[in-house]
Amino acid sequence: MRIEEDCIGKLAIDEDVLYGIHTTRALTNFPISTERTDPLLFKSLIIIKKAAAQVNAAAGTLDVRKSRAIVAACNSLLMGEHQDALVAPAIQGSAGTSVNMNVNEVVANLASAELKTIRVHPNDDVNQSQSTNDTYPTAGKMAALQALPPLKQALTFLIKTLDAKAHEFADVVKVGRTQLQDAVPTTYGHSFHAYASLFRRDLARLTRAAADLQAVNLGGTAIGTGLNASPYYRSHIIRQVNQLIDLQLKPAEDLIDATQNCDVLVAFSGAMKGLATDLSKVANDLRLLSSGPQAGLNELHLPAKQAGSSIMPGKVNPIIPEVVNQIAFQVIGQDVTISMAAEAGQLELNAFEPIIFRDLLQGERYLARGIATLTSNCVAGLTVNREQCETAVHHSAISATVLSPYLGYEATARLIQHSMKQHVAIPDLLRSEHKLSAAMIARLFSPMVMTNQETVPDLSIAEK
Amino acid sequence: MRIEEDCIGKLAIDEDVLYGIHTTRALTNFPISTERTDPLLFKSLIIIKKAAAQVNAAAGTLDVRKSRAIVAACNSLLMGEHQDALVAPAIQGSAGTSVNMNVNEVVANLASAELKTIRVHPNDDVNQSQSTNDTYPTAGKMAALQALPPLKQALTFLIKTLDAKAHEFADVVKVGRTQLQDAVPTTYGHSFHAYASLFRRDLARLTRAAADLQAVNLGGTAIGTGLNASPYYRSHIIRQVNQLIDLQLKPAEDLIDATQNCDVLVAFSGAMKGLATDLSKVANDLRLLSSGPQAGLNELHLPAKQAGSSIMPGKVNPIIPEVVNQIAFQVIGQDVTISMAAEAGQLELNAFEPIIFRDLLQGERYLARGIATLTSNCVAGLTVNREQCETAVHHSAISATVLSPYLGYEATARLIQHSMKQHVAIPDLLRSEHKLSAAMIARLFSPMVMTNQETVPDLSIAEK
Amino acid sequence: MRIEEDCIGKLAIDEDVLYGIHTTRALTNFPISTERTDPLLFKSLIIIKKAAAQVNAAAGTLDVRKSRAIVAACNSLLMGEHQDALVAPAIQGSAGTSVNMNVNEVVANLASAELKTIRVHPNDDVNQSQSTNDTYPTAGKMAALQALPPLKQALTFLIKTLDAKAHEFADVVKVGRTQLQDAVPTTYGHSFHAYASLFRRDLARLTRAAADLQAVNLGGTAIGTGLNASPYYRSHIIRQVNQLIDLQLKPAEDLIDATQNCDVLVAFSGAMKGLATDLSKVANDLRLLSSGPQAGLNELHLPAKQAGSSIMPGKVNPIIPEVVNQIAFQVIGQDVTISMAAEAGQLELNAFEPIIFRDLLQGERYLARGIATLTSNCVAGLTVNREQCETAVHHSAISATVLSPYLGYEATARLIQHSMKQHVAIPDLLRSEHKLSAAMIARLFSPMVMTNQETVPDLSIAEK
Amino acid sequence: MRIEEDCIGKLAIDEDVLYGIHTTRALTNFPISTERTDPLLFKSLIIIKKAAAQVNAAAGTLDVRKSRAIVAACNSLLMGEHQDALVAPAIQGSAGTSVNMNVNEVVANLASAELKTIRVHPNDDVNQSQSTNDTYPTAGKMAALQALPPLKQALTFLIKTLDAKAHEFADVVKVGRTQLQDAVPTTYGHSFHAYASLFRRDLARLTRAAADLQAVNLGGTAIGTGLNASPYYRSHIIRQVNQLIDLQLKPAEDLIDATQNCDVLVAFSGAMKGLATDLSKVANDLRLLSSGPQAGLNELHLPAKQAGSSIMPGKVNPIIPEVVNQIAFQVIGQDVTISMAAEAGQLELNAFEPIIFRDLLQGERYLARGIATLTSNCVAGLTVNREQCETAVHHSAISATVLSPYLGYEATARLIQHSMKQHVAIPDLLRSEHKLSAAMIARLFSPMVMTNQETVPDLSIAEK
Repeated sequence: MRIEEDCIGKLAIDEDVLYGIHTTRALTNFPISTERTDPLLFKSLIIIKKAAAQVNAAAGTLDVRKSRAIVAACNSLLMGEHQDALVAPAIQGSAGTSVNMNVNEVVANLASAELKTIRVHPNDDVNQSQSTNDTYPTAGKMAALQALPPLKQALTFLIKTLDAKAHEFADVVKVGRTQLQDAVPTTYGHSFHAYASLFRRDLARLTRAAADLQAVNLGGTAIGTGLNASPYYRSHIIRQVNQLIDLQLKPAEDLIDATQNCDVLVAFSGAMKGLATDLSKVANDLRLLSSGPQAGLNELHLPAKQAGSSIMPGKVNPIIPEVVNQIAFQVIGQDVTISMAAEAGQLELNAFEPIIFRDLLQGERYLARGIATLTSNCVAGLTVNREQCETAVHHSAISATVLSPYLGYEATARLIQHSMKQHVAIPDLLRSEHKLSAAMIARLFSPMVMTNQETVPDLSIAEK
Repeated sequence: MRIEEDCIGKLAIDEDVLYGIHTTRALTNFPISTERTDPLLFKSLIIIKKAAAQVNAAAGTLDVRKSRAIVAACNSLLMGEHQDALVAPAIQGSAGTSVNMNVNEVVANLASAELKTIRVHPNDDVNQSQSTNDTYPTAGKMAALQALPPLKQALTFLIKTLDAKAHEFADVVKVGRTQLQDAVPTTYGHSFHAYASLFRRDLARLTRAAADLQAVNLGGTAIGTGLNASPYYRSHIIRQVNQLIDLQLKPAEDLIDATQNCDVLVAFSGAMKGLATDLSKVANDLRLLSSGPQAGLNELHLPAKQAGSSIMPGKVNPIIPEVVNQIAFQVIGQDVTISMAAEAGQLELNAFEPIIFRDLLQGERYLARGIATLTSNCVAGLTVNREQCETAVHHSAISATVLSPYLGYEATARLIQHSMKQHVAIPDLLRSEHKLSAAMIARLFSPMVMTNQETVPDLSIAEK
Repeated sequence: MRIEEDCIGKLAIDEDVLYGIHTTRALTNFPISTERTDPLLFKSLIIIKKAAAQVNAAAGTLDVRKSRAIVAACNSLLMGEHQDALVAPAIQGSAGTSVNMNVNEVVANLASAELKTIRVHPNDDVNQSQSTNDTYPTAGKMAALQALPPLKQALTFLIKTLDAKAHEFADVVKVGRTQLQDAVPTTYGHSFHAYASLFRRDLARLTRAAADLQAVNLGGTAIGTGLNASPYYRSHIIRQVNQLIDLQLKPAEDLIDATQNCDVLVAFSGAMKGLATDLSKVANDLRLLSSGPQAGLNELHLPAKQAGSSIMPGKVNPIIPEVVNQIAFQVIGQDVTISMAAEAGQLELNAFEPIIFRDLLQGERYLARGIATLTSNCVAGLTVNREQCETAVHHSAISATVLSPYLGYEATARLIQHSMKQHVAIPDLLRSEHKLSAAMIARLFSPMVMTNQETVPDLSIAEK
Repeated sequence: MRIEEDCIGKLAIDEDVLYGIHTTRALTNFPISTERTDPLLFKSLIIIKKAAAQVNAAAGTLDVRKSRAIVAACNSLLMGEHQDALVAPAIQGSAGTSVNMNVNEVVANLASAELKTIRVHPNDDVNQSQSTNDTYPTAGKMAALQALPPLKQALTFLIKTLDAKAHEFADVVKVGRTQLQDAVPTTYGHSFHAYASLFRRDLARLTRAAADLQAVNLGGTAIGTGLNASPYYRSHIIRQVNQLIDLQLKPAEDLIDATQNCDVLVAFSGAMKGLATDLSKVANDLRLLSSGPQAGLNELHLPAKQAGSSIMPGKVNPIIPEVVNQIAFQVIGQDVTISMAAEAGQLELNAFEPIIFRDLLQGERYLARGIATLTSNCVAGLTVNREQCETAVHHSAISATVLSPYLGYEATARLIQHSMKQHVAIPDLLRSEHKLSAAMIARLFSPMVMTNQETVPDLSIAEK
């Protein structure tokens, strides 16, 4: 055991752990769960430490030997070594200080070990020119930016797959349904294209919201005034981070503001919440359209992925959309959490960033993986029950809406009610009541006309 | 114009308005909407003023003539006069002071007018022994308690109507559906009984949560210490209010706590949110089960209440469940609002009670009226499409689950898959493959057996 | 009484009301509150009716006399006449059909009255080429766009006022506070500039989200296929609406998608929620910084707007920020409502748009008015208690952080703890322990240095 | 590798894993996170399997040798063996089938291995008389009940600690603060007692809501009709589970209802959300009252738990309340998630129970641990800065409220304004203006009188 001391007092620490007193205290203070701070957030902090050591050395405020040792320590951590020393809890008070100090301590100990005779100090050296209040939110944003490409790729692939399905089902006419009641017909091509259109906007919104994450307060130190960071450091640090990892960070326009406000995180969460809402809507549609197989709509066949029931043999359930729904509910709830945490920020700092970053990063991952399984395990393999669709369209009285411009709303309503009450198909009614020729009926109720892809024939002229 | 003065300064006030400077300032400060504070909240405050005047007179701290004039003024307000003087905005800062002072001013002016030579003071006389901080939350709880019976009655009538439907549909066998896929059969009797059971619990939870609203901090004055209220007043005021209106109020056990915490309001909102969640689930079911009429499940027929479409003639939509869904979403969202407002309370007071009471009271009314229209315009008149239900059950392969204990899970699964792929009904398969006699098949697939209301015959013995 | 008939049956309607059977049924079906559909939404629908009549006449599908009469009827409604006929409830099922039909009926009756001998039909004529499903969401978006300028103006004025305050308080040094504990100093100039920066981003996000509201599905009719609208109408209607009101609408790229998805409304609500979150944070800060006057921070003086207490004489409370907090909680809760309503949309339509538009429009107004009262009744007139700020900075030991680069973190920590425990000011300690000259101390603790507006003197050299 | 087959097809499975094809598919289908289903939920399911095997054997529907082997397998799992075989993901579609089948497969394989010559079937034997739809929600409720005692104990200990603090600080007079502005005095004894009172209600609400978790649908099988479970099993299974673990389960009154509705989970989540809201309020108070140390209220001293800043030496932050705030935000957000998941249930089942149980159980644990660290690391060791409290009360002009009954509201307001503007203490003013004797002043402003623990002397008489 070694003894360390801080402004609270002394503490015995296991000889062979790389972290120090601050991290140890955090583990005692925040025993909420075994979940550690996100690896991407740790990685980003280490990159900042490395860049800071380089810039501080160039500024002449950090001994070059210390700088080199810090860089080497960071490199070994970035290579995946000593990960068991990065233990700061995901759920913690301290506004991220525990995470920042965890990294400071581990890097300082590694660097000191390398230098042997020179002690590298976690605060004075590793954390030089920095504060938790600028490194931690910067690292959090960097982590969110790094977690984004998998999400965007998954979403892009979903869109592509939906577009392919739209193409595949372009000629499958189906009953439209508004307010769950039969409406005028459309095609499954249209339906899947609509889903693709929806997610294209989500992708754009996500991209737009993520761009604002690139503005960081690094260099602002404790409250954004940049106290204790050299002018050289302040003008070079973000550039240096960008050289180490290409996230195109840029300095926030107002560092005081950027240090205390979490609005860009709320906006990014909002974009994810919007995506979640849309995913849930589409998942609901897929589950509904594939309901049955006998006592449901049975228009879509989702790929069977696992036996659906422990008691009902042969049952297959829409389990992939179901997991997507649940991820969506989670992300929507976490948007409330994130908004509340942002709202609770006070004066020069928001002390509740740890829960914000934890939920944001979790949300990005859940969504990315949920979308991936939706795409590959459900959408890619789904097929349409053409026969069922055709029968449904054929029996749907509401497709007589096409007659409304000629017969008028009221007469058409009577026709439709007649059809439904007497269980006579509309074409039969039209024929039997001698209103229209067979050819005209065929044309009127052709898929292309009913879905308005071909102009509706002018009955008023035709029939005269 | 008359000139009034407060600690802010002087203000000219229209000669003929009954309220005074405080109310006038509130109208200028909070021009958020034209919505006034809830009439029930005003009424409850007036009752408190009346009771306080009576008790203060009995305590010897208020001139008996003033007391009588205040009581008379309150009575005229309670009779519905001068309502245009009760103008304090529903959405306001000030922790309710604007509402309390609105009443104090109006009552004081009415009482002074009656007494002519004696001026009744809004603070010293009408508000004697009181603070906004005890009268306003007490009045808010009283209002919530008064808005509850219509909600409970509506809910009780819904439950009764559902029970009646359960009785009416007791013999209608339907396909069960889990995860929207066909499952073993049940009856619409069971389904409607389940809805009734659900709402019975909601009614109990609502009643339970409302009981906690009866504990009030009246007598605690500014922060719960009761400063400036006489011992006599403190021990008699709640009793007196109870004599004027039977809400069975009782003193909170810890007045300091009751003055600063809104947890019982959050709990009551939570009970309403739970009810809203359940209403929405049932509304969803009703909309789904009545979907079609041709391209949907079409098992329930909801009463047609209005033409469903401006363009599609003859379309009828499930508009009543739809409005219930929306009320539910509103109440669920407002539970977030109320929770945030409660969380934001600080130290000796919660300054955000106005939005809490506004949303609570609105929620009670919306739910009461939404449930009433759901009951009378939808549930009471809905019918079951027996033919459709029967056909669906007949075609549903999954009802072969009943064979599982005899054939085993795997063989039954194969049988069901065979049935679905070849479009052969299970009974036909059983017969053709000579496994079971016609009589046994008939018994197995009788409604009472399939829904487990009669014991499943023991195939293992029967068939030997 | 006159008798009207629809597909539900006959109904007696008051002779002198301008609306008809559909609206009457809605009033019976949705007695949730007395709140009517938003006037801006009605106005927008009427503009659409007018434009449609003009375009349909040009397309040759509507009798020119009818078209003129419809336009005249719309004009009279747009001039503010017959507003008492626009009664469709704000909270309703029917996906907006009740609102659309209310307008169709009123316009048809007005137009028929003008033409006398020709009956203008609400569906066949007024609603020609339209469906509720394209007119209602288009009108809702138009309403949201029209409610936006007051909000943006209020926000712009708030930003301007904050910038002015930043300028006014540029030289007022104050203790920074992170996690509510004393931190290194900043200025009130910085603080107010940070608030302005924050709201500048909100303004940009709001503008960005609103732009997406301009893409509308008008011309898509029932489900986006455009059935029953002439090609001429479909290519001219949006242009015509833009001529009547300059909202720069454009056709949605995918009408099927635009008819069923509410994602742009969710995104717009999200931007409002973000703004609400930020307003609440700033309101919290203002309330905290003005706390006291004796037992609080007492650094800011908010304008006194009304007597704060009915029982505590002379008390003045931060009522304006308080109302802003409550509006924020409301908008944050309504974002949950709106998200749930959007998520609940099914297949070709979202039936829950009425609650979405109701909450969106209410949110825009509440925010606009809340911000306006915050600006004019609070921010514009607030002043800084310079003396209190100065004293606080002078006594704050944490400003010794500036010494850390020279003394090291640990020695500085000891110095600060010494100062706090012995109640000796840091400068006194520095002097008494002979570490630094008076001149250097004065320079170190000068406002410009402490707030890092001037470079910190290099102690390591200076003191050698 | 061994080959297994289900209704989807064949799959190669690692020879040495104890689970089978169903679990393997789940791992592929739901790669959302590495988080497994909660151990308490697994444990509860295993208990159910054990009880079911015992009851089925007694009912004569399960071979006694199989029953014994199943019981043995369950026992070994309950003893902690083979935990690496319990891998079903926490976030999953399938309504819990993956979890149930994971247990069925592992138990069947263990039992088969023991019996060697007899194959125990996961569905026919281990799952006999059961469905996921009754075992999974029952196990979820059992898990929630088992996670509750630590939460209740933590809460009880917090209440006890707060009560002790109330006793310890009974005589410490402090300025009351309403709307963050100085109000009439109270004591820290009162304040801490109020916190204890608040949490006592939370404990009661939690207990009340948990009682409803004891009603389970075990025996209802697939949809609540109990199909495929013997009458003997149905009447004995819950009793048997109660013998294995004392959770006092009882059969739900309506099994159809209990199988499809999650309202009791929503209500339980609501009780947790209420607790979270209250914890956050108290955490906010603790952070505010301990703000400073120099430029804040500085009335409470929270125990210093770790160095507060990486850059500001000697800074100590309220990190324990901060983590409590964040847990509260999480639980409040998850209440939205849980409500949405409950609302989304359809017809005979709620497919979204996995996310509900995951969030519920996580919430219980986070709250239990958050409360524990709040109690032991913060509340237990906090002290009051008596000197600061006394000074604040002495300088607070608002304590002159006590004079209001004698001087009247307006005169007292003038007195207080005079005091504040001239910076003269109220007692000095009273003395200098000869209104009151020194003795009377002393009595008036004695702690016991100001906090209304002693009756205010009757000035009207005294001074005559």
